[in-house]
Amino acid sequence: MSGAARPIGIFDSGLGGLTVLRELHRQLPAEDLIYFGDTARVPYGTKGARTVTAFARQDARFLLRQDIKLLVVACNTASAFALDDLARELPVPVLGVIEPGLAAARRSTRGGAVGVIGTRGTITSGRYQAGLAGWLDPARIVANPCPLFVSLVEEGLLDHALTELACAEYLAPLREAAVDTLILGCTHYPLLKPAIARYMGPEVVLVDSAEALASAVVAELDRGGLRREGAGEGRLAYYLSDLPWTFRTEGERYLGKPIDHVETVNLDELEAS
Amino acid sequence: MSGAARPIGIFDSGLGGLTVLRELHRQLPAEDLIYFGDTARVPYGTKGARTVTAFARQDARFLLRQDIKLLVVACNTASAFALDDLARELPVPVLGVIEPGLAAARRSTRGGAVGVIGTRGTITSGRYQAGLAGWLDPARIVANPCPLFVSLVEEGLLDHALTELACAEYLAPLREAAVDTLILGCTHYPLLKPAIARYMGPEVVLVDSAEALASAVVAELDRGGLRREGAGEGRLAYYLSDLPWTFRTEGERYLGKPIDHVETVNLDELEAS
Repeated sequence: MSGAARPIGIFDSGLGGLTVLRELHRQLPAEDLIYFGDTARVPYGTKGARTVTAFARQDARFLLRQDIKLLVVACNTASAFALDDLARELPVPVLGVIEPGLAAARRSTRGGAVGVIGTRGTITSGRYQAGLAGWLDPARIVANPCPLFVSLVEEGLLDHALTELACAEYLAPLREAAVDTLILGCTHYPLLKPAIARYMGPEVVLVDSAEALASAVVAELDRGGLRREGAGEGRLAYYLSDLPWTFRTEGERYLGKPIDHVETVNLDELEAS
Repeated sequence: MSGAARPIGIFDSGLGGLTVLRELHRQLPAEDLIYFGDTARVPYGTKGARTVTAFARQDARFLLRQDIKLLVVACNTASAFALDDLARELPVPVLGVIEPGLAAARRSTRGGAVGVIGTRGTITSGRYQAGLAGWLDPARIVANPCPLFVSLVEEGLLDHALTELACAEYLAPLREAAVDTLILGCTHYPLLKPAIARYMGPEVVLVDSAEALASAVVAELDRGGLRREGAGEGRLAYYLSDLPWTFRTEGERYLGKPIDHVETVNLDELEAS
């Protein structure tokens, strides 16, 4: 297959990265997109760097075998720990969520503090903070992990008293620091935008990794002459390493429409790669 | 090594099963105990039966290679899906958490309804409900999954407004049904006993799987003449497939004391088994 006709591969620890696929499909409707969600080993956000890197390598290799032209690491934790390794090791361009999120925050801030929220792994990695420190006074950077947010989204508690209370618990330091921009450093968090916006106030810009990343993918395809031409709509394919009890309702929540067909990937096959 | 001198193996999806190890050590201080927590792939409770069974087999085989005399499946979800297979396949006695919990509930109920809470996997499996239906009118059985409870315990939010609210969310059907006994069908839940008791009322008996299981292990060892003799205190060994960011604080929370030394198990090694 010619370079431009090949599909784009996207992986995430689970289903949250479907928010990225949705945005990619919106911005690049002609592209074939192949999604892999490592639902058998989800979440990555609580786990150590070595484990996350090993999983990310296996996920990437699975997608490479589908002859992809570009790899999107839709998981913030995997981007934080494994992106440099993957970019060095793989024969295709590799884009993660962190750089696009940082660039969007840089464009949006109006002189106030910049906040970032994510899993414990992503925040502990310090990747967002280091990126911000390249152009922002460290006194203006506020980072906080929000470990319960993923479970709340997985359970569909998007507009619930529990979610309001969790926002107050995790976001208080960011509101106190008067951030004008808040990076949502986890693919699940865009679904909490209304609750987060209610707590933070309407003047705070919420940077959605999915949107920022999709724009970066468009730019990368154009740079490499890899954009697929053609009038037809691209094919969307979904692979998961486990079918969790809630995958249909959850998938629809992230994707905005039902997943029509899912292939399960045997974990033995994945691990052997 | 003679039969009785060999260690007891205990596995769980993560760190929650340390509540079982703690209770086993209290009731059987002379026994050597080897714990394996599959922290690289935790949780099991959201995942499908096939995935959980495959993981449970690998966990069990890892412990069998340590020459154990008895295997304890400390994870409710793994007990629900894999106990029959493991008991049939393995050359040592295998005890899970479900039967001991059911027996304790049978002793405790005073004619009211009996409730059971657990992960989505455990409740969906129907194993507790089927066990209760052997001697209890199905109209008196109330089961409800409590998906956020595990995250709340992992985050140490044992006595927090979020936990009070989650109790009200998940336990309302059980309080309305006036259960007199509530099975805590997940190794994490005993840490929420105070919050659950506050919501359910002091007259409701909370059945702790860890206590019920430890008593069943004592009985099984006595039956097989496998109890270790000797005045010395048994050796406790801990193996984990990942070192999560919070494992020290979390381990201490479940164990009641710090974990002095942990060995990490390479997942490749585990998966090859």
